[in-house]
Parts: sequence; structure tokens; C-alpha cells
Amino acid sequence: MHLNIAVLEGDGIGPEVVAQSIKCLRSVEETFGHSFTFQKGLIGASAIKQTGSPLPKETLKLCKSTDATLFGALGLPEFDNNPKAKVWPEQGLLKLRKKLGLFANIRPVKVFPSLVKQSPLSKAQVKDTDLVIFRELSGGIYYGEKTFDEEKNIATDICSYSESEISRITHLAFKSARSRKKKVTLVDKANVLETSRLWRRVVTQISESYPDVELNYQLIDNAAVQMVLNPAQFDVILTDNMFGDILSDQGSVIAGSIGLLPSASVGLEHAMFEPIHGSYPDAAGKNIANPVASILSMAMLLQHFKMNEESDAVVAAVLKSFSKKIVTPDILGSSKYGTNYVGDFIADNIMELD
Amino acid sequence: MHLNIAVLEGDGIGPEVVAQSIKCLRSVEETFGHSFTFQKGLIGASAIKQTGSPLPKETLKLCKSTDATLFGALGLPEFDNNPKAKVWPEQGLLKLRKKLGLFANIRPVKVFPSLVKQSPLSKAQVKDTDLVIFRELSGGIYYGEKTFDEEKNIATDICSYSESEISRITHLAFKSARSRKKKVTLVDKANVLETSRLWRRVVTQISESYPDVELNYQLIDNAAVQMVLNPAQFDVILTDNMFGDILSDQGSVIAGSIGLLPSASVGLEHAMFEPIHGSYPDAAGKNIANPVASILSMAMLLQHFKMNEESDAVVAAVLKSFSKKIVTPDILGSSKYGTNYVGDFIADNIMELD
Ligand SMILES: [Mg+2]
Ligand SMILES: [Mg+2]
Repeated sequence: MHLNIAVLEGDGIGPEVVAQSIKCLRSVEETFGHSFTFQKGLIGASAIKQTGSPLPKETLKLCKSTDATLFGALGLPEFDNNPKAKVWPEQGLLKLRKKLGLFANIRPVKVFPSLVKQSPLSKAQVKDTDLVIFRELSGGIYYGEKTFDEEKNIATDICSYSESEISRITHLAFKSARSRKKKVTLVDKANVLETSRLWRRVVTQISESYPDVELNYQLIDNAAVQMVLNPAQFDVILTDNMFGDILSDQGSVIAGSIGLLPSASVGLEHAMFEPIHGSYPDAAGKNIANPVASILSMAMLLQHFKMNEESDAVVAAVLKSFSKKIVTPDILGSSKYGTNYVGDFIADNIMELD
Repeated sequence: MHLNIAVLEGDGIGPEVVAQSIKCLRSVEETFGHSFTFQKGLIGASAIKQTGSPLPKETLKLCKSTDATLFGALGLPEFDNNPKAKVWPEQGLLKLRKKLGLFANIRPVKVFPSLVKQSPLSKAQVKDTDLVIFRELSGGIYYGEKTFDEEKNIATDICSYSESEISRITHLAFKSARSRKKKVTLVDKANVLETSRLWRRVVTQISESYPDVELNYQLIDNAAVQMVLNPAQFDVILTDNMFGDILSDQGSVIAGSIGLLPSASVGLEHAMFEPIHGSYPDAAGKNIANPVASILSMAMLLQHFKMNEESDAVVAAVLKSFSKKIVTPDILGSSKYGTNYVGDFIADNIMELD
């Protein structure tokens, strides 16, 4: 297969973790006889510095014309801590998601047996955790109309959802559940919010077309508790933009390191793959950043294009790095292996599985 | 001091846990020479059954005319599982909070050293946790206007905050921080929401009047992570209605038992004190319910009226019950002590501290 991949390295540790994924993709090319081309684009703080915009037009054009986008990380403290800034690095990502029509953010959370000790939760709590969060990504209160009445000093944000916005991600979630443990948990606040009540109605109705998948419901406050008490109960979690933001970040600590978790953002025409971690500027250039989240995101890219065998081979190489303790210091404090070494090891161990 | 206290026992285990708090208040009366009178009112499922309303007028009148309200617990499954019900027990509490102008919900989360093993988090994570959440209780998206457009199948919820709504709870939070570890963490989503940006501006401005208190900021998704990774970093958490709902329930699991956590809901003229646990109908009448959350809520009542010594004496008696293992079975599976025995022990051990 030939794929044309847009590469947005972004800020901080972005460039160095993405470099490991590209290394691994080169190895996949060789092992499985594919051909990948890579084209770089600017985004985030580095794009602001060079062009004034967090998402230059060329970058958007690049992402629209390629088959998929591999994204690094984004953000620098000089912007976060400046309330007077007119543009923020994060705007680049929000705009890109919107322009590419990426309406679903997919985040698997898996506790790897060899890393179970990494989790802040007790072993009994986390073992067997293997869930995936489907977060609606282009609607809800994050994108709703905002007002500020200067006279009365009143601010408002509107949360809005249409049936069609709910329905398209719901189908993705149920299809995913079919190839997993066949369970969908809808997380909402239906005892209080009108939008949540619409989610319940739409999702319940759609669930009837998937009789092999079980649907249950949790309120967001309870779900945040269950994510700590018993994350292994979940298979597919389906939820709106804001609740998904909170739950998926919370889910991320369960795995023991935010450096391990990949994500995909998909729409009808485009797809983007990115680690869930931030740009971690303090670690940039020090060869200590964990490349695994970026590499596993790249594995999701392969899966997205039905290269399941190839994706499995990448995951197997990552698991081998864990069992051989070829990991960065965030996983094992005493480890002397850096970003590059771990990336090389994983790339070298991508091979056809029997 | 003389206090006239409204007692709303509510449903399920409500009556039996409140009975232990009253026992302890009698002991405080004797030990410290105060005088408390108690007047009972109906609320919740039992009020619906007897009067048709979850909040009878007499109850509201009672709570308005007394100095403070001691609340038990609320709800019965026959209402929860009946989607056709016209009234719900929970409406009684929502309406009462609104009518009494209770705009701040205050929830301390403390991990007691002798109970640290109870927490689902590892000891390293939770020891030294001693935080209090100030949740805005009468505004935000839970109370905002809701619409549903049947033609377009679009639902909306409006989140709205005014400067004055933010300012009154902010002062409470900073005053509390002054008597604690002098640190306030504002939790919001200021990188996305207009209401959050108003919170930041108002809180930042007010913080200038409290130069002895440190203010910092966390985004809600990060705060949900930090609450798992390192809850001991927090002193006072200040946040809006919905974020507070999620964070305080999440905080509640950290303590290891929901049976331990008290809360206060305060306004300008009224105050109500209640355990955060529900009515736990399966345990009702079995003498197994944990009375500690109710007793600690009563200790918050004493503190509210500046009876700090008295409040400390109640907390000391509770700690003694922990160290002597005079606890209900939710804390120690093998324990044979019931609600009444634990209540008696704590009441008997309320004494003047040196
Ligand atoms: Mg987030
Ligand atoms: Mg709640």
C-alpha cells in the first residue's frame, strides 16, 4: 500500500517522538513491502513564531491533500502563562480538527501486564483494564457560542448537540464494540442536562441496530469514580466532548504513564493520529521523552488503513521493549535508555508475526 | 450558645445516622454547656409518600426559621427506577438548596492515617491528603436555560455565571484557606470556556485582597488527573457547579469510604450540613450504616458557628473510634460494631481537649 502522510511535529518533544514513529514506519515499509511518503507542516507555537498563525494555510492544505496526519505535540509555557496573548498554540489543533471534520477522538487505555506497577491505583483495581473512549470532538460546549456582557459582567457558554452529531460517533463506537468485548457505556448527565437526554435517546435508539452489543449508562460524576474504583468494567465508553476530555485524561493516568497512550481523531474523509501527552517542553531535546505513545498512535494509523498485521507487529515490538526493559526513565527511573535508543529498538523489532 | 436546629432525616439510612449526630450534639451540650433544640421536618421519598411533595412547605418554613439544618440522606429505588414518576425525592433537596440560597457546597476530603489502606490509591499517593472543595452550587450549566428543538432535533444547555455569583464563593474559599494551608486552586477550563475566563478574572482580582494566600490554576481535565496522582498537593479547590460535581465525587473515593465524608452547603443566611453518601436503602434499619459522615457533618455545623473547640472535640472522638477499631463493617469487614454502638462510642468520647 502507498500512503502519503502529513507530519506535524509541533512543539517541545513533538519532533523527537515523531521521529521515532517515522523510523518505525520505515521498518514497516521494508518488512511488509509498503511505501510511505512524509511531508512536514508547521503547527502550534513554532508555527506562530514563524508565521504568526498557529495553523498556517499551507499546513491545512497539506493535511487535506494527504491520506492521514501524524501529529506530535503542541504548546509552550510562554503562551500558556500570557493572558494577553492574542493567539494560542492550542488554537491550531482545534481549528485543524474542525477543518478536517474530525468528529471522533478515539483513546484506548490499556494496562500492560509488565507495567501494572506503574499505575497509581492498586494492582487489583487496574489489572485487566482494556477500554477505549470515543469522545465526540467537534460539538458541545467547547464549540458552542460564547458571550460576555460587559455591563452586567455575565459570561455564557452554550452546549449544543444535534441528533446527527450524536449518531455518527455512536455508530463508530458500536462498530468498535463489536470487535471487542461488545459493551458500550454511555456517559452523560441525563438527570440534569437536556443535551444529555438527547444523547440517551439517540444512542438508545441506535443500539437497537446492534443487538449483539450491550448498552449501559453512567452519569459523569459516577463514571469519574468508577474510572478509579474499577476501570476494568469498561469496554467502549461513548461520551460528549467535555466529559470525554475529563474522562480520557483521567483514564490516561491509569495506564501508569501518559507517555504510553495513543489516540486517533477521525472524520468521514480525514484522520489524524497523535499521542495524548503534551509537548513537555522541559524535556525537549534531552533524549528522555517516551516515544511509545507516538509509536502506538502510528499503529492506530496502520489499523485505520486495515493494515492490521502491520499494526499488530508494531504493538508486539513495543511489548518486547517493555519486557526487555528497553524503556525511557518515566517508566523505570533507573533506565539509561533514551528516546532514540528505544525508538531504534522498537523499529528493529518490527517483524512479520506467525 | 443556643442553637435551634432543623433535622431532616430523609430516607433509607438517613434517620439512623442522623440519630447518632444528635446523640453527639447532646454530648457537646453537656460537655461545653450549650443548648440545642431539634425540630424534625419531612423531605424526599418519605415526604412524597406522606404529603405528595418532596419538599413540603412546612419543611421549607422550618429550615428558614431555624439556625441551621442537619440533613440525613435522600432517595428510594422505587422512584429512581420509575421513568414515569412525576416527582422525585432529589427534587426536594435541589429546591431546598435553591430556596435557602445555598450557593456554596463545601466538601473536605481527608485521608485518615489509620484508614489509609482503605483507599483504592496507593499509600504514597494518598497519605497527607487533606483538601476541601468549594463547589458553586446554584449556578452554571445545571441551572441554565435548556431548549429542545423538535424539528431540528437539537438540544441546548446554557452555562452562565455572573461576577457576583463567582465573587461570593471565592471569598468563602479564600477565608477558609487562611485558616488552612493558605493555598487556593481554581479549577476551570479557561482555555476554552468564556465562563471559565470570567472565573479566572474575578478570582484573580479577589486574590489580591488575600496576599497571604497563594492562588494557582488547573484545567479540569488536568485536575481530574491530579486528584488521582497527587491529591495531597491540594489545599482549597475552588470551582464551578459541574466541575465541582465531578471532582468532589472523584475526591470521595480517595478517602476509602464514602461513609466518612461530610459536607456543608452554605448561603448568606442559611446553612445545611449533610453526609455526601446517599440513602443506601438496602442497609436501612440493619444497624450497619456508617454514622461518621453524618457526625463529621455535624462537626462542620459547630465550626460554622465558631465552636471550633467543640468541633475539634467531635473530630478527636471520631479519630479515637478509628484507632480503637470501633468502626462499622464498611471500614473493617470483620467488625461487629453497628451504627448505634459506634455512635455511642463517639458521643461518650467527646471531651474537652487540653
Ligand atoms: Mg484534555
Ligand atoms: Mg455528584
